[in-house]
Amino acid sequence: MRPFIDTHHEITDLLNGEGKKLPLVQIHMLEGRTEEQKKQMIAEVAEAIARTLNAPKGNIRIAIYELPKSHWSVGGVTLDEKETLPKQ
Amino acid sequence: MRPFIDTHHEITDLLNGEGKKLPLVQIHMLEGRTEEQKKQMIAEVAEAIARTLNAPKGNIRIAIYELPKSHWSVGGVTLDEKETLPKQ
Amino acid sequence: MRPFIDTHHEITDLLNGEGKKLPLVQIHMLEGRTEEQKKQMIAEVAEAIARTLNAPKGNIRIAIYELPKSHWSVGGVTLDEKETLPKQ
Amino acid sequence: MRPFIDTHHEITDLLNGEGKKLPLVQIHMLEGRTEEQKKQMIAEVAEAIARTLNAPKGNIRIAIYELPKSHWSVGGVTLDEKETLPKQ
Amino acid sequence: MRPFIDTHHEITDLLNGEGKKLPLVQIHMLEGRTEEQKKQMIAEVAEAIARTLNAPKGNIRIAIYELPKSHWSVGGVTLDEKETLPKQ
Amino acid sequence: MRPFIDTHHEITDLLNGEGKKLPLVQIHMLEGRTEEQKKQMIAEVAEAIARTLNAPKGNIRIAIYELPKSHWSVGGVTLDEKETLPKQ
Repeated sequence: MRPFIDTHHEITDLLNGEGKKLPLVQIHMLEGRTEEQKKQMIAEVAEAIARTLNAPKGNIRIAIYELPKSHWSVGGVTLDEKETLPKQ
Repeated sequence: MRPFIDTHHEITDLLNGEGKKLPLVQIHMLEGRTEEQKKQMIAEVAEAIARTLNAPKGNIRIAIYELPKSHWSVGGVTLDEKETLPKQ
Repeated sequence: MRPFIDTHHEITDLLNGEGKKLPLVQIHMLEGRTEEQKKQMIAEVAEAIARTLNAPKGNIRIAIYELPKSHWSVGGVTLDEKETLPKQ
Repeated sequence: MRPFIDTHHEITDLLNGEGKKLPLVQIHMLEGRTEEQKKQMIAEVAEAIARTLNAPKGNIRIAIYELPKSHWSVGGVTLDEKETLPKQ
Repeated sequence: MRPFIDTHHEITDLLNGEGKKLPLVQIHMLEGRTEEQKKQMIAEVAEAIARTLNAPKGNIRIAIYELPKSHWSVGGVTLDEKETLPKQ
Repeated sequence: MRPFIDTHHEITDLLNGEGKKLPLVQIHMLEGRTEEQKKQMIAEVAEAIARTLNAPKGNIRIAIYELPKSHWSVGGVTLDEKETLPKQ
């Protein structure tokens, strides 16, 4: 069980500003990763931000936007098209 | 019926610049609100912006991006995971 | 003074999920509005979202991104160019 | 067949920086265009950017975000509502 | 001079829906391009979208977000750091 | 020194698809962090994503968007206003 005093401090951080300053993160990626991979990615990205900014991670927000292969392109060619091209 | 002269002025605003300066709004939210709630939210947000910026609302654009609970996280934990955790 | 019980409930909402579900809003607009107008706009947009979604507004996040006229365009023409064109 | 020397230069550009500076483009649009239209749009937008910035297009990234009519609004009215209104 | 009838049709398109369906485009790029290059890029991207979607370009919105080299990274290394690294 | 064969494989990954699938990350945060903190954050976020998605990090793109306190709000109140309010 999380001790009361920690929770209390975290509440204070969240409401009085420290937590509220933390970054918002938007991650755009292709469909096809497992739910487990995405959860793990979110957990470790939040950890990395909290550690490097020396800040409580309690309020970091991360959103994932999944894109189908037909909606993501590099060099003007969508990724579903690339798969039908011969490898270089 | 909307009087002609108002429509005419609104067209002038839209084409000659006033309307075109109005903000673009992107709202990111969890899935699960009713269509009626979302329409109401959009209508009142547009109203609030037009009123506070003293500008015609005819051209304000608002987009909604809905996220599943597994794609939105706070503190490194996705909202679907949170539901399975014991309440504090 | 805000009564304790309200604050307490709001904390509970914020930490246990209701507040955390609230939308993130990104508003993109031209430079040139006063600080007062932007603060008023943020306050009323948060109010409108809380009211229409029937949710505590304590945790709604709104970000403003200001653009110079040379970085916002309609119909392929930037707004600084438009000002030098004859009105239609 | 693409000559080896071109490919080599393109690799150098991609890895040593020129390609990596190229813009990221996010296009938000209504659902309903054909896959062919979207691919064509992506190809020509990439071409337009490469040409006007005088840069290799090999690494330009373009993402498409499709919105249902109920999630895109102008003047506080969603596009699905607009269709049920009488034309002006 | 643009004939009246064309302008009239364009107004109708803008107000009655065709123009309002057109994409919103957000272009994120490094600082350092000239104003002329950015205007040219916007003009040609709008042209490319209008042509491939077979739609009036009068209402396409394009925003540019410029990033300093220290705020854009590839492979975990910001572009200002890359310049101080030896070329591969 | 990085061995040739690794570089070669990384090039192949980048050009033939693996690297190109990696996420794009947009981090929105308040002004005021040091350049060193931001570089460190970017490096560790890229590391976290590469590790959890089991992918080469060579092509992960991360952009930072800094916001002044007057452009970021929680609960309808901008962060510069919050500082002038009495602590709860």
